[in-house]
Amino acid sequence: MQAVIGIDWGTSSLRATLFTETGTVREERRRAWGIGRLPPCGFDAALDDVCAGWPAAPILASGMIGSRQGWREVGYVNTPADTDLLIEGTVTFRSDRGRTISIVPGVRNPETSDVMRGEETEIAGALTMCPELSGSSRLVLPGSHSKWVDIQCGKIVGFATMMTGELHSALLRHTILGADVPGDSPDAAPDAFDEGVQAARGSCGAGALTRIFSARALVLDSRLDCNAVPSYLSGLLIGEEWRAMLASGWLQTGRPPALVGDPRLCALYQRAAMLFDLPRPAALSGAAATGLWRIHVALEKQRAGVSVTRTSEHR
Amino acid sequence: MQAVIGIDWGTSSLRATLFTETGTVREERRRAWGIGRLPPCGFDAALDDVCAGWPAAPILASGMIGSRQGWREVGYVNTPADTDLLIEGTVTFRSDRGRTISIVPGVRNPETSDVMRGEETEIAGALTMCPELSGSSRLVLPGSHSKWVDIQCGKIVGFATMMTGELHSALLRHTILGADVPGDSPDAAPDAFDEGVQAARGSCGAGALTRIFSARALVLDSRLDCNAVPSYLSGLLIGEEWRAMLASGWLQTGRPPALVGDPRLCALYQRAAMLFDLPRPAALSGAAATGLWRIHVALEKQRAGVSVTRTSEHR
Repeated sequence: MQAVIGIDWGTSSLRATLFTETGTVREERRRAWGIGRLPPCGFDAALDDVCAGWPAAPILASGMIGSRQGWREVGYVNTPADTDLLIEGTVTFRSDRGRTISIVPGVRNPETSDVMRGEETEIAGALTMCPELSGSSRLVLPGSHSKWVDIQCGKIVGFATMMTGELHSALLRHTILGADVPGDSPDAAPDAFDEGVQAARGSCGAGALTRIFSARALVLDSRLDCNAVPSYLSGLLIGEEWRAMLASGWLQTGRPPALVGDPRLCALYQRAAMLFDLPRPAALSGAAATGLWRIHVALEKQRAGVSVTRTSEHR
Repeated sequence: MQAVIGIDWGTSSLRATLFTETGTVREERRRAWGIGRLPPCGFDAALDDVCAGWPAAPILASGMIGSRQGWREVGYVNTPADTDLLIEGTVTFRSDRGRTISIVPGVRNPETSDVMRGEETEIAGALTMCPELSGSSRLVLPGSHSKWVDIQCGKIVGFATMMTGELHSALLRHTILGADVPGDSPDAAPDAFDEGVQAARGSCGAGALTRIFSARALVLDSRLDCNAVPSYLSGLLIGEEWRAMLASGWLQTGRPPALVGDPRLCALYQRAAMLFDLPRPAALSGAAATGLWRIHVALEKQRAGVSVTRTSEHR
């Protein structure tokens, strides 16, 4: 197998992983160069920096780097989607500085038009790390845009997006809920986080939008400290995810989904799940890198089988 | 009865009404001088301008003018609240330029800590305009912070706030949902508004937060025009109000609440209600001015009865 540099390249940051020929992670580096804030010389310059001193190797990237605003637009593949479909949709090109770059496609749910970019690779990683999730399982990938994903027979068969992280930030920064609130960390006040989760749970079928103003009203009434508002609001919005998914029947109480993502964020989702009397969900981290290696292996096998793949572009 | 100048004075604008001694509206004027954006010389200067040429008369004001950030902080009265309680909580003072100013208190729901400022006066007006609403009724006051209000025996006995207007604005201006979207008018695309309402209705117990990302995903999939996003999102959020209030049992399908407020906004709520198979709700406008006159009359009667009221302050 050839060595490869895997890049999880999103809107606000990139994370590069140097793999050896056997798939061992040799080094990981992170930069704040998401596609929205690149260094002046652009994508190639960002790679020069993040890969400095590493041996030359082809690049395999996933995430918003394949969007219209990214380096090269790579279309979506439709659900049901597995690794075979992802490598069919992967686009390979040569950069101005002579690098070979492959970008993994996003996944689209044709029923709802919902889309993901980057999470498909984390999912491929999660299914590699825990093969028992491949049969029939539910995954949650918390984040700016949380994804609630339905897996059957190793394929993504459906998913839905909740804009929890982005909504949390917009409410705190740009509405009355953020008035007099100094920080934005959801971890600052665990008790307030729990109260937020309970408020979402208590909203029953009405849902948490009927409760978000409480993040301000409780402050005015001296029942919530300003410093605890980010935690309270985080509990309310994460609690709303659990409430909604239980209410819709997507989740059954005895069988929690597995969490995939940042351990700090997964810990908040675990805490919220338990306040809904669900068993503590498992949490997997490092899935993006594992998924990139998994897709690299599949791509290499495919390339070894056919001299020119029908989905690769070279220019 | 003495003449009075009534002022509905909120965060982003003020609306002044000159009443004759018999309560006839002689003139109405509007300025963009909410408490957040006053002319340089402050509250008195704003009054000089908006009352220019009007006969000297005491001022009766309601709304955010009585908040901590307003001219004079006036506490809340608790539910159950009627006009008698409002006049008990009204604070009167003399301004630097010698005007007599009275400010109506807000109302607080002690169970939930929820609060309103300004809507209590509109509600007093609505109950004056339609006395049949006084017995037992439900009112909706759409706006930045929509209020869903429970009336019994002429009293506000409960209410809940939905941050619909402010959320619509924050989502369009500060999240991915506003990308490539030129305007923000909810009236631009009635069909898209209806689709948003149907999306909220279709979300069933899960609620509209599970659907807001569709405002972006449908654009990416060329199923929604960028120009129609504000209407779609407005339909989704206003639809969510109806969905939530029906789901919670607060509303019964045969008996819609009355709408009180801006006719344009009320028309959107009527349109959404009918998509939930509710009868078309009645809509009342001009309730703030009517409510200010109603409270003025009650205050004058009280003052005629007692020489120094226990709730007035003079300095």
